[in-house]
Amino acid sequence: MVIVVHGGAGVRRVDKPGDPQLAVLEQALEAGYAQKSALDAVIAAVMVLEDSPLFNAGRGSCFNADGEIEMDASIMDGATLRAGAVAAVTRIRNPVVAARAVMEKTRHVLLAGAGAERFAQVQRLKLEDAEYFRTEARLAALRKNLKDHHGTVGAVALDADGNLAAATSTGGYTGKMPGRVGDSPLIGAGTWADNRSCAVSGTGIGEAFIRAAVGHDVAARMRYLKQPLARAAAAALAQVKALGGDGGLIAVDRRGNVAMPFNSEGMYRAAIDRAGKKRTAIF
Amino acid sequence: MVIVVHGGAGVRRVDKPGDPQLAVLEQALEAGYAQKSALDAVIAAVMVLEDSPLFNAGRGSCFNADGEIEMDASIMDGATLRAGAVAAVTRIRNPVVAARAVMEKTRHVLLAGAGAERFAQVQRLKLEDAEYFRTEARLAALRKNLKDHHGTVGAVALDADGNLAAATSTGGYTGKMPGRVGDSPLIGAGTWADNRSCAVSGTGIGEAFIRAAVGHDVAARMRYLKQPLARAAAAALAQVKALGGDGGLIAVDRRGNVAMPFNSEGMYRAAIDRAGKKRTAIF
Repeated sequence: MVIVVHGGAGVRRVDKPGDPQLAVLEQALEAGYAQKSALDAVIAAVMVLEDSPLFNAGRGSCFNADGEIEMDASIMDGATLRAGAVAAVTRIRNPVVAARAVMEKTRHVLLAGAGAERFAQVQRLKLEDAEYFRTEARLAALRKNLKDHHGTVGAVALDADGNLAAATSTGGYTGKMPGRVGDSPLIGAGTWADNRSCAVSGTGIGEAFIRAAVGHDVAARMRYLKQPLARAAAAALAQVKALGGDGGLIAVDRRGNVAMPFNSEGMYRAAIDRAGKKRTAIF
Repeated sequence: MVIVVHGGAGVRRVDKPGDPQLAVLEQALEAGYAQKSALDAVIAAVMVLEDSPLFNAGRGSCFNADGEIEMDASIMDGATLRAGAVAAVTRIRNPVVAARAVMEKTRHVLLAGAGAERFAQVQRLKLEDAEYFRTEARLAALRKNLKDHHGTVGAVALDADGNLAAATSTGGYTGKMPGRVGDSPLIGAGTWADNRSCAVSGTGIGEAFIRAAVGHDVAARMRYLKQPLARAAAAALAQVKALGGDGGLIAVDRRGNVAMPFNSEGMYRAAIDRAGKKRTAIF
């Protein structure tokens, strides 16, 4: 198993990021690594990060301009190109699990808002009240009107059968408009997986990632231009930069190559590569 | 001005389609052709189709499983790669106009549900009650549990300045789950425009269009594989077919070439080409 996780771009040195986040990131990595399939691996990793209040996904999500939390998540299975996603959900404990349920239990790819919540309830997924998701740190960011958008989480994996998968989950960013949907739940933007090329999960200014179709662009550059993963990932991210956006992405290709480029000051990231070697970094 | 409009794939010979739809399609084409910019052209064309009860967008949209209408729309400006979209909106008379407002008046690309409605209200866009959108034909489709998904509308255009634009609008399909969002409001899936390559608007089984990232794939094949528009469009649509989906798309490239492939029985479509020649067809 090759697995890569991110805990979001946008982190700055002045934020004094540190050990607690890295420890959770390692837990997420280990949780994913312990799985057999790439699909189970990305779910397990993202769930750990959603459950932690230190990242901007699930518990600890950013507040929108109304002081409410609306979360987005998606997953894609590179073997079948099946995908699932939820957007603007407020009560689902693990949006990535709901995304997988959309993929596996419906004919649809994306469910938004109240319809997604109702579906999650029917599927007996864990729901929580608003208090569960709320953290003082994110509330302070809203009060101070901070441009707080770091902490989106994601994972990509390649399993022993050669299958790729990707998942992304986020609370968006502080002060976003109610109903705003970013790139994280959008297949081809924040998330992409295709066994013919690579698996990608993005983080950053989501609007620029959508306008550059980042996830699909990395894959298209590999398939059509025969670019190696690192070059394709860097080129896709350069398009984001050209649109005035910053952020980063994690990617793994079908040979197990890993790329983790970013153009922000830092990006929480960790990987276990083909040789079983673990790496963790912020800057 | 080169302009192409579609009124949806999925139409069958047994549906006895005919003159009324074709007449509205021509009105849409003329409304777009009368504009100076590609962006204004696709808006004008799609508005005509949204206002007509004969197409599945705006008035005349399909009902979801709850017997409600939830509409999706998007627009993309090929000159700047700016984009805007709304999803699962219930009261906005012209969702494509709301999509443009998201693009021009917010930092966001996609607004969903109640947040999008509130934004439309603040922007003083025309809202309507449920009765306005409701048609007997779509209600009958819901009652008979028909697999009714035809009638999505869209337009692509190339203006005299060499700018491309694309817009798509839909009510989804009859019996869809509440909250389901298809490819129409998703940039890179149902809609794409980039002056470096082409403008695309799709129609069909939206889930397959998302999983094949159809809009961006047509553009990527042109830019990276140097495929001509017709070949790129056919290849992207073949991916939809490979995923078990059917449908079609309209596209125009920066040289004014037009493609209108579909793998369904029919697709309402009309175009005015570089020579000013008009074509209209269903099968």
